[in-house]
Amino acid sequence: MEKFNLKEKFELFSDHWKPKVVAALNQQEVKLVKLQGEFPWHYHEREDEMFLVWKGNMRIEFRDHTVHLGPGDALVVPQGTEHRSAADEECQVLVFEPAGTRNTGNIEDEQFTALQTPRI
Amino acid sequence: MEKFNLKEKFELFSDHWKPKVVAALNQQEVKLVKLQGEFPWHYHEREDEMFLVWKGNMRIEFRDHTVHLGPGDALVVPQGTEHRSAADEECQVLVFEPAGTRNTGNIEDEQFTALQTPRI
Repeated sequence: MEKFNLKEKFELFSDHWKPKVVAALNQQEVKLVKLQGEFPWHYHEREDEMFLVWKGNMRIEFRDHTVHLGPGDALVVPQGTEHRSAADEECQVLVFEPAGTRNTGNIEDEQFTALQTPRI
Repeated sequence: MEKFNLKEKFELFSDHWKPKVVAALNQQEVKLVKLQGEFPWHYHEREDEMFLVWKGNMRIEFRDHTVHLGPGDALVVPQGTEHRSAADEECQVLVFEPAGTRNTGNIEDEQFTALQTPRI
C-alpha cells in the first residue's frame, strides 16, 4: 500500500507506446503510456479500455469518426470496437483495463506489441 | 462512446461524500467524489479501491498510519483493509472500484452511506 504520484511515474520512462503498470486491483490494471505517432488499428475482444489524458493531446480514431482528447478528457472504448490512437506530439495517458490486456489487442505487431508490461 | 472531461464533471455537483459514476467498464466503475470532513471507518469485504486525487489534498487513515495525498497522488486500498478518508478542505477525487461498491463498505451510516450512485 504505497502511494504513488502520476507526474513522478511519467518521469520514469520515455519510450512511446510501451505501457507501464502503476496499480493492480480487482483483476484490473492502471497503466501509464506515452504516445507519439500513430498506433495500428486493433480491437480488444473481451476488454473495455478507458483512456484518460494526463498531459498533451491525442486522438482515438474509429472507422467512422475521430475523438480528440486533451488534459482531463477520458473515453471508454468498448470491447470489440476497432480503434487506433494517435498523437502528433507526445501525450501522457492513463489506461484502465483488465490485467493482462495486450496493447495491440487482436493483432501482433513487431514494432508496437508490448511483450512485457513492466510494473514501475 | 462519449468522451467526458473530469473538470467539467466535477463542476456538475457540489455535495460531499456522494460518489457520481462517470464511466463503467469491465464490471468496474469510475466515480468522482468531493470530500470534506471525515468519513466513518469501514472496509470493503471483497473490493479493492483506488483513490486518485484530482484537486486538493486528502488523507487516508488506517488504524496504524495515515497516507497524505495531493494532486496526482494515488493509493490502492486493498479489500478487507479498514480505513477512513478525510480532508480539511474540499478535495476532488477519482475512485476506481467494482460496480456497485457501497461507499461505506461494511457499515451503514445514516449520513454517509450513498443510497444511490447516480451517473453524471
